[in-house]
Amino acid sequence: MYSVEQLQKIIDTEIKFRSVKLKELKPTNLYSPVNYSLEIGGKRLRPVLLLLSYNLFSDDIKAALSPAVAIEVFHNFTLLHDDIMDNADVRRNQPTVHNKFDENSAILSGDAMAFLAYKFLLESKSENLINVIELFSKTAIEVCEGQQFDMDFENRLDVTEIEYLEMIRLKTAVLLACSLKTGALLANADNEIANQLYEFGINLGLAFQLQDDLLDSFGDQKTFGKKIGGDILSNKKTFLLIKALENCTPIEKTELLDWINKKDFVAEKKIEAVLDIYNKLNIKELTQAKIKYYFYKSSSILQNLSVDKSKTEPLAELSNQVLKRNY
Amino acid sequence: MYSVEQLQKIIDTEIKFRSVKLKELKPTNLYSPVNYSLEIGGKRLRPVLLLLSYNLFSDDIKAALSPAVAIEVFHNFTLLHDDIMDNADVRRNQPTVHNKFDENSAILSGDAMAFLAYKFLLESKSENLINVIELFSKTAIEVCEGQQFDMDFENRLDVTEIEYLEMIRLKTAVLLACSLKTGALLANADNEIANQLYEFGINLGLAFQLQDDLLDSFGDQKTFGKKIGGDILSNKKTFLLIKALENCTPIEKTELLDWINKKDFVAEKKIEAVLDIYNKLNIKELTQAKIKYYFYKSSSILQNLSVDKSKTEPLAELSNQVLKRNY
Repeated sequence: MYSVEQLQKIIDTEIKFRSVKLKELKPTNLYSPVNYSLEIGGKRLRPVLLLLSYNLFSDDIKAALSPAVAIEVFHNFTLLHDDIMDNADVRRNQPTVHNKFDENSAILSGDAMAFLAYKFLLESKSENLINVIELFSKTAIEVCEGQQFDMDFENRLDVTEIEYLEMIRLKTAVLLACSLKTGALLANADNEIANQLYEFGINLGLAFQLQDDLLDSFGDQKTFGKKIGGDILSNKKTFLLIKALENCTPIEKTELLDWINKKDFVAEKKIEAVLDIYNKLNIKELTQAKIKYYFYKSSSILQNLSVDKSKTEPLAELSNQVLKRNY
Repeated sequence: MYSVEQLQKIIDTEIKFRSVKLKELKPTNLYSPVNYSLEIGGKRLRPVLLLLSYNLFSDDIKAALSPAVAIEVFHNFTLLHDDIMDNADVRRNQPTVHNKFDENSAILSGDAMAFLAYKFLLESKSENLINVIELFSKTAIEVCEGQQFDMDFENRLDVTEIEYLEMIRLKTAVLLACSLKTGALLANADNEIANQLYEFGINLGLAFQLQDDLLDSFGDQKTFGKKIGGDILSNKKTFLLIKALENCTPIEKTELLDWINKKDFVAEKKIEAVLDIYNKLNIKELTQAKIKYYFYKSSSILQNLSVDKSKTEPLAELSNQVLKRNY
């Protein structure tokens, strides 16, 4: 059985190895951004989830490496395109691809990554490969749907909590769930357990995205990797803003809408003012409570999984790691 | 055995049926551009090639419909993204997706189409499905490579004929070849014949793209669907320009480079001047000769295919249709 740390090292090495090989391909202008995006790193959360899930049933980790790389390549593809759509200049404390290269590069290298993900999936010799590819394709479509809902919400002030949760389920949670279920499918696990791992991933993913929302407003600049307050500045319909709009007094609502509608403002002032309202409304605590809710749901699914209890420890450890980021 | 016309009708109906069903899905802003792009139409060349190839070996066309739709959906995905990258406002006499909707829509709906293509492929129950998906993924990566080479050529004046032919092989020919080979694979055809159909497609595709280059400068506005002279205005490194730069006198070269480097010009004047040089250098005839070369190569492969001669007639007919567009 592998530890989280061991798998993180194994997959990081594997991704970097593949990334260097991709960089040697022509045309250079297509593969350089791919290499750049993969080398920047990140937590490798999704491939590690895949490997941990696989490792519940099999120790032959090698056979799951290329699908694990595939999931990370796909994830990075979504970042390339999302960063164009969201006009994001920085990610993981580094310039985004469309910022470092140009927008066309980010579009086209992103496209190539989407198909490279399939190429890596196809390296697997699993009997379940068709099921894996089906799940992956379904998930990829859902991720696009989630991103569209997210963009649609930009122009709305009446987004409900339910709509928001469905959006982050699609945009974030299904890929974590897909990673976990893929690990199980590759190891020929029982279908029921594979589906439970999927549900574990959905709940973990919801908690994870809520945490991300929280960190964007209440996090520590250094560990977060992006500027704090970005969501506030762009009026992003996060759980925080949705709950604030839902719970505020008429006077607070006027103030909040004023800041949302203002075209000219000092960034720090807006962040400070909105945080002030959030604090008055206990938005931080409310969000933490919701994170805990989904975290406990995910833990309970994990604990009830029909596998040897000791085997689920690394997955429990990773969940804790992911959700105990500083804030 | 089906005629070209019959298959065109069948696939057009099928694509429109699927397109209407997609339009009903949420989020509307994701699926409307997908529907728009699929409904505009076009020749449906790639799915018809797939069906014609399949029909060489089997009459049960129904089993090949969803992969045929997949190829068209993929092709339209490339158009959505290429049109952003090339700043193209009009396609098939209609506003392009990023023009009618917006750029983010064209990026994200394009992405969704890439994965929808896999979804449709996966509807096939063929024993060869993994091989089909492998070929498709390899082809998709090559198409991205071709588009990158094409963009790279924008900043170069020394593109050789060989480099150009490799670019259009990747950008255009491999998808035609993939369509044909996919049809054969789905019908469980002999591997050797499947590969010959692939080669037929490569040569047809090269002829087809050279023809497209020719039509952009010498075509008829009405039947072409785009503005004539677009390639000349954007200094696109087409076969025509590459041969002109290769064959011109020093004086003509100075004139050609002057037009290429000019920032302020009257569009009609530039088109007229460049066409004048092309005419002096017999570029039209030179390009026609090259088209014929690849067309005859493709015909010869088709004639030597180890299938009943009468069966290849519709494929021969479609090749003729495609290459006898007005100029």
